[in-house]
Amino acid sequence: MIDAGAVIGRLRETDARSGGRREAWTEPWAAERERLDAQARAGGGAVFVQRDSFANAWYVLPGETEETVLVGSHCDCVPGGGWLDGILGVHAGLGVLAAIAAGPTPRRTLAIVDWADEEGTRFGRSLLGSSAATGALTAAELDGLAAADGTPAAAIVSAYGFAPSALGHPEPRLRPVVAAVELHIEQGGTLERQGQAVAAVAGCLGVRRSRITLHGVAGHAGSTPMGLRADPVRAGAAFIGELFADAQEHGGLATVGRIEAQPAITTAVPARCVLDLDLRHEVLGELQALDARADRLLARDRAVGSERAALYAQDPIEFDPALVAAATAATAGTAAIAAPVGEPIRSGPLHDSAALAQAGIPTAMLFTSSSGGVSHSRDEDTPERHLVAGIEALYRLVRTLLRD
Amino acid sequence: MIDAGAVIGRLRETDARSGGRREAWTEPWAAERERLDAQARAGGGAVFVQRDSFANAWYVLPGETEETVLVGSHCDCVPGGGWLDGILGVHAGLGVLAAIAAGPTPRRTLAIVDWADEEGTRFGRSLLGSSAATGALTAAELDGLAAADGTPAAAIVSAYGFAPSALGHPEPRLRPVVAAVELHIEQGGTLERQGQAVAAVAGCLGVRRSRITLHGVAGHAGSTPMGLRADPVRAGAAFIGELFADAQEHGGLATVGRIEAQPAITTAVPARCVLDLDLRHEVLGELQALDARADRLLARDRAVGSERAALYAQDPIEFDPALVAAATAATAGTAAIAAPVGEPIRSGPLHDSAALAQAGIPTAMLFTSSSGGVSHSRDEDTPERHLVAGIEALYRLVRTLLRD
Repeated sequence: MIDAGAVIGRLRETDARSGGRREAWTEPWAAERERLDAQARAGGGAVFVQRDSFANAWYVLPGETEETVLVGSHCDCVPGGGWLDGILGVHAGLGVLAAIAAGPTPRRTLAIVDWADEEGTRFGRSLLGSSAATGALTAAELDGLAAADGTPAAAIVSAYGFAPSALGHPEPRLRPVVAAVELHIEQGGTLERQGQAVAAVAGCLGVRRSRITLHGVAGHAGSTPMGLRADPVRAGAAFIGELFADAQEHGGLATVGRIEAQPAITTAVPARCVLDLDLRHEVLGELQALDARADRLLARDRAVGSERAALYAQDPIEFDPALVAAATAATAGTAAIAAPVGEPIRSGPLHDSAALAQAGIPTAMLFTSSSGGVSHSRDEDTPERHLVAGIEALYRLVRTLLRD
Repeated sequence: MIDAGAVIGRLRETDARSGGRREAWTEPWAAERERLDAQARAGGGAVFVQRDSFANAWYVLPGETEETVLVGSHCDCVPGGGWLDGILGVHAGLGVLAAIAAGPTPRRTLAIVDWADEEGTRFGRSLLGSSAATGALTAAELDGLAAADGTPAAAIVSAYGFAPSALGHPEPRLRPVVAAVELHIEQGGTLERQGQAVAAVAGCLGVRRSRITLHGVAGHAGSTPMGLRADPVRAGAAFIGELFADAQEHGGLATVGRIEAQPAITTAVPARCVLDLDLRHEVLGELQALDARADRLLARDRAVGSERAALYAQDPIEFDPALVAAATAATAGTAAIAAPVGEPIRSGPLHDSAALAQAGIPTAMLFTSSSGGVSHSRDEDTPERHLVAGIEALYRLVRTLLRD
């Protein structure tokens, strides 16, 4: 059986050493990865510690066949991030590896992967290592990335063993993978509200992200009757009000994380209002309908013109149904908690698992609850018994998959 | 009769020399004022050219009595401003002065005043010279003012003849003033929409200006169902939508010139939304009701908390009814245009005349139309025949007042 308490102890030790400072392609991140290597090697000679061409760390326990069960997550974090996002899946995976390695050789091979740069905080590109491994990240895309100070991403990642020249060639270790699973915190409040410790994840919401510029007519705050103004802030407010109500009614998510009036003069009707819109839905048709509704609402206002530039688009990702069912079954009957087996939930955030699923690899995830739904913050937390339930569910799931 | 064409010629010459660059307390502004002095002196020995203790320029034609009719405006402009805002009233006033000086000594004294720093662009304090002259500007307030580079306002204005030590002592030249009038462009589109060249101004709208901070709960754009979010941008949009509709319904003006989500992350529900709200109405009770409605709307949202800090408050200013009637009469029957005599309108922007009215001096204004309502821009314009109508109306009004 897996020692979930030991996994949680290692999470706390890691947080004490490098918590909130393990941004990808930095020394604290690289140092923590060397510690993970040492920990995996200490587990016994049967485990191979390797890096692929994209700085992803592989911890492999060969089975009777090359068919591979992959357990992945990431040890990098956002600056000031919490003690669980990503690193939970890595330490839980290494805990599972140690438990399996202590027993007889499994039928299938087990690979724990610490994907490089899931968060994308350095270059604004999430899922960097996993997307490189699946072949989705192109050399042209990497060439377009740079750090805030202008240093090209290629120069920075090369210093940590990432080979830009290998881009476009999917990582061969992925070929024999028959199942990929990941344990992560939810980063939302659904499980907490439902009173669940852990749940399987059926897929990731689709995303349509755009920058909208509303063009009005600037003027003095004391002039022009309200009915004759072309006020881009008022138009933006009406747009947000209607679109958000529509998203809520149809089970989607709509967020404006950035909004700005230009020029920002307290006593003037602004000339422009710029806002970033993030739309999400689990059903592609609904996502497209919400996106089209945004266009219609923008076109409706004749006094205020608008432009809309796409920033990012990702269709909804469905994880493998059989694997999701197996993950759901694995959440039942943990030793630590009488957890009700709930319906699989959807992930709003993207994860490395999404990159694998998009590449056609059978994939599923497990989420533990997030206290208050808080993440990307030092306040991020999960009740310890929920972590135990998640770690044990991952162990049960992997054992089942290794025998299939 | 006044030579309106000559006044317009001087406006164009001034604009060619220093257009858009006559910010108060700069060399282009001071140089233009010396030219105005020379122009006034060239009109004949009967006119005294003086500066008061607050750098306001006085051009005085003594009458049979000390009772004074004051014609004021300002020759400073906002950076990149137009060819009419403020300087129209100064050149028109000097044109009136020249026309009156060419005739017999008037019964009352005529004073043209070029108020210093109406725009307030250097220190963020509008109506500086006129407020100093009425005694409304205190030494403590001046001490709190500084230029963007941190230089104290007192140091800058002293170099142009403004004596901070005189603050608190109303300018003696104001004591015998029995009527103060000002010709200005409307800076709004009301006259243009009504097909009017010129109109009397009954008063200035009252203002309530505040900074509102909405406090929500930050979260990932992919997490938390819409109905469970505490989204400060959505709350701000609803607030703007309802309050602006209320302002429109009740004949007021509501403007949000600044709005900002914090932190500005495209993929996150923001923690806060900060917006500046400017409310205006001509009726004090309606202004107060609109202001109270803003408080009620903010208090209604229980998920999103709010703070509201007052930035500026000015009750509506009523100009002198008899003087407004005289100004209205003066707009009838100009030589240049068969202008319909319209109802007096209200000024949304404040003017030096507001400072005089607040000090209890009988005051009124005349507005000419503004093309497209555009001002504080190089595109600012007024049809030349409307300018002629305004200049001639000012002349008729002043002649009447000098004889009263």
